[in-house]
Amino acid sequence: MSQQQQSSATPLERFRELTGKIKQFEEILGLVYWDMRTGAPRKGIELRSQAVGALSSETFKLSTSEEMGELLAHLSAPDNASALGEIDRKLVEETAKDYDRNRRIPPDMYREYVVLTSQSEAAWEEAKEKNDFEGFVPYLEKIIDYNRKFIDLWGVKNTPYDTLLDMYEPGLTTEELDRLFGELRERLVPLAERIAKSPNKPDTSFLNGTFDKEAQKAFSKLILKQMGYDFEAGRLDESVHPFATGLSTGDVRITTRYLPEDLTSALFGTIHEGGHSLYEQNISPELDGTPLSTGTSMGIHESQSRLWENMIGRSLGFWQRYLPDLAALFPGQLDGVTPEAFYRGINVVEPSLIRIEADELTYNLHIMIRYEIEKMLFNENLNARDLPEVWNRKYAEALGVTPPDNAHGVLQDVHWSGGAFGYFPSYSLGNMYGAQMMDVARSKLPELDAQIANGELLPLKEWLTEQVYRHGKLLKPSELIERISGRPLQSSCLCDYLEDKYKEIYRLE
Amino acid sequence: MSQQQQSSATPLERFRELTGKIKQFEEILGLVYWDMRTGAPRKGIELRSQAVGALSSETFKLSTSEEMGELLAHLSAPDNASALGEIDRKLVEETAKDYDRNRRIPPDMYREYVVLTSQSEAAWEEAKEKNDFEGFVPYLEKIIDYNRKFIDLWGVKNTPYDTLLDMYEPGLTTEELDRLFGELRERLVPLAERIAKSPNKPDTSFLNGTFDKEAQKAFSKLILKQMGYDFEAGRLDESVHPFATGLSTGDVRITTRYLPEDLTSALFGTIHEGGHSLYEQNISPELDGTPLSTGTSMGIHESQSRLWENMIGRSLGFWQRYLPDLAALFPGQLDGVTPEAFYRGINVVEPSLIRIEADELTYNLHIMIRYEIEKMLFNENLNARDLPEVWNRKYAEALGVTPPDNAHGVLQDVHWSGGAFGYFPSYSLGNMYGAQMMDVARSKLPELDAQIANGELLPLKEWLTEQVYRHGKLLKPSELIERISGRPLQSSCLCDYLEDKYKEIYRLE
Repeated sequence: MSQQQQSSATPLERFRELTGKIKQFEEILGLVYWDMRTGAPRKGIELRSQAVGALSSETFKLSTSEEMGELLAHLSAPDNASALGEIDRKLVEETAKDYDRNRRIPPDMYREYVVLTSQSEAAWEEAKEKNDFEGFVPYLEKIIDYNRKFIDLWGVKNTPYDTLLDMYEPGLTTEELDRLFGELRERLVPLAERIAKSPNKPDTSFLNGTFDKEAQKAFSKLILKQMGYDFEAGRLDESVHPFATGLSTGDVRITTRYLPEDLTSALFGTIHEGGHSLYEQNISPELDGTPLSTGTSMGIHESQSRLWENMIGRSLGFWQRYLPDLAALFPGQLDGVTPEAFYRGINVVEPSLIRIEADELTYNLHIMIRYEIEKMLFNENLNARDLPEVWNRKYAEALGVTPPDNAHGVLQDVHWSGGAFGYFPSYSLGNMYGAQMMDVARSKLPELDAQIANGELLPLKEWLTEQVYRHGKLLKPSELIERISGRPLQSSCLCDYLEDKYKEIYRLE
Repeated sequence: MSQQQQSSATPLERFRELTGKIKQFEEILGLVYWDMRTGAPRKGIELRSQAVGALSSETFKLSTSEEMGELLAHLSAPDNASALGEIDRKLVEETAKDYDRNRRIPPDMYREYVVLTSQSEAAWEEAKEKNDFEGFVPYLEKIIDYNRKFIDLWGVKNTPYDTLLDMYEPGLTTEELDRLFGELRERLVPLAERIAKSPNKPDTSFLNGTFDKEAQKAFSKLILKQMGYDFEAGRLDESVHPFATGLSTGDVRITTRYLPEDLTSALFGTIHEGGHSLYEQNISPELDGTPLSTGTSMGIHESQSRLWENMIGRSLGFWQRYLPDLAALFPGQLDGVTPEAFYRGINVVEPSLIRIEADELTYNLHIMIRYEIEKMLFNENLNARDLPEVWNRKYAEALGVTPPDNAHGVLQDVHWSGGAFGYFPSYSLGNMYGAQMMDVARSKLPELDAQIANGELLPLKEWLTEQVYRHGKLLKPSELIERISGRPLQSSCLCDYLEDKYKEIYRLE
């Protein structure tokens, strides 16, 4: 019966149905991962990982099936392709890309890899907790080894690492990244040095103390609502490592982490994940149920999280409006702190060990270290076992700090345990994209800074929806930034922004 | 590559793999349903329902595939079947049953039905909240209509309703149920009448008041731990309608509902779901990952929930031990209440409107009403639209009460919104199975009552694990009860138990 139905459907209908099914399975897998990170019971992880492996494999098989190959061949033929609408054409293009990539991976290899990575996140968490790098090495070695094999199967572009980069930021090369990071280094390292010498250090003493968890939660919710995050299309939970996951436009979930001793962790973590979520919640409903209903690249995704976290959440105007609300939640703890003092305090620049706690300026140095190490892993065959030594050396060189142990060093980030090599650059790309977008936003919305200082965050959200969010994956990252700003990605907007901001805070010159 | 692998595997290996995959997909679907009921955002439900439909269809296709048919035919052939071990033989038998049943349903029909039922639960919830039976009728009509079609496709056994009953209690017939319910009615209705006339009414005034939610939660956790529920293989959440779901033996989740005005709701709801969960957590690891790793029937499942809830949770010994713990959580609210008074108060018998709030005795009358209505729906083609009238008439006849509105009448239960016609009898079957098991338990564990009064609940849990839980679906319900008690299911153990209990509480004769 379904056989008959299929043959009466047009190739385009069959293609939409098949890609829709892949999207549906991915939505369900996304939910399973969310659950694993927000409280799935420990004893169920082993069987759950196997189940995830089975469903991922099924999804993988659909994306590499003979039927998919035939449909793509048919719909990509010039006569047929030219008859397609914009969405379908893009759908064919993106699906063909995945098809070509996935067809090169043997299904069993893929399944083993999925099971491995879904187990290794738990192993990493344990290793981090116990400061046991040795215990994590076997996983890391296997994951790196799989990725090296994937690169061989996919084919090396320029350098092996380029092949991984392309997964997160289509079209991006190490050559381009070397240039961008070089420019950042050239302007940001001297800036950091001048800051270090400045006698005008912000006072951060008001950030010391114990901050009630329920009050922190209430403020996180308040700010998300102010940003226009739709709680009927999402929820806020807790996890050891904050994240956002867009299961569909109607279900975009955020997690955060409330540290009693650190008010800023949940605060900026929530705004960061809120930025990711605004993106996913506001993709055009036209794209619902298709693989195009997601962010166009991780760099653009991080531009939204970092823009909201830093350019809005760490701005003076924002705190002129919201500090009284925050102070009211912690009676007696923030009395007498002015918005200016608060602003300076949350923007203190200090070389540090932990990326997610880093200030906006040195953050990019943390990323460059990871970028260099990842290049070494894939372009120079660095051994997993040697990572701690390389890591610590690079931290000493770039930031002048040395981790006391691996938990505060090479084990700090979740990414590698999930095989996400090539992801880290997205954060700095996001910082650059975001600064470039904000320059345009300020010229298009002349009232923007006044609005932020007045707690009106929705005009910016609407502008970003129009420019970025609604397009989902319809536009490539390079197309998007050209369309918004009239030029390709630059490092200069970010450097200008950071120089202006920190010269003022540290009263340089 | 996977093709090659498949052909080198034996039929038994391929069969295990295929049934394992079905089990894995069901585990994931179970998680999605859990999520839908514990806080999935409203705006994501529509797309999620479609995704559930897609994965359920995939699972359905696996269970009805040509490959499955060939493997079952091969493994059921006498020569091959006799070479199988006990687990594999049972696996073939149970899978063949599902295969025969599912092959009769057209795949598209199945998919439509899954989408319908996953939407209609939300529709029912809304209808109940707004007391809007009319709004729910279209869903109900469709669900009933599908079930009538399923019955035709599956084939009528004795009566159409028998076909549904068999899904929840394999082998059970309306003839047998009519007899059992007749026996219950004959002994329990006169008992209820004598109780109504008794002047010795328990005092329930101490149950009035407002009971702190966090304290209720703490007590729920305490009791689950005491019962031997493993929190590393499960979790306790909240939902509008309490339930338990066994995703695997390592992940068996409970939800409950804390009503500030009603201490007993969460208390007995939690113990009830805890009973279901002990069953699922303690199935033999040998059966992990197979479709046999679940309860053998809904009647046996409810025997465990109802046994723990009533025969343990509403026993005097239990409260001799735990009342001080409960009272300590609600300072000033239960002062001076003796275990005896508490025991009598929580066992008050009163005709009521709501099944899940009913006492242990009249509970069975609530079930009989539903059983009779379900028979009318499927054996006499009663219209969905006429349900409220029939419902209210039967409540007036059997319990002497009339619902003030449909929310407190025909809309009270979730079951029909999910298409679970034929499930309700499981509760009374559970009461009967449970009483029959407890008679044996008392003879095998002579210290049992003393242990309960001493807070030692684990010996009973271990005995039930040995007798019931570990077997999963290896034994049929009829085999299980024969094996435990040496005879088939009887109504007399339950009637004897209830008579003894209530004669004492109401000081009858």
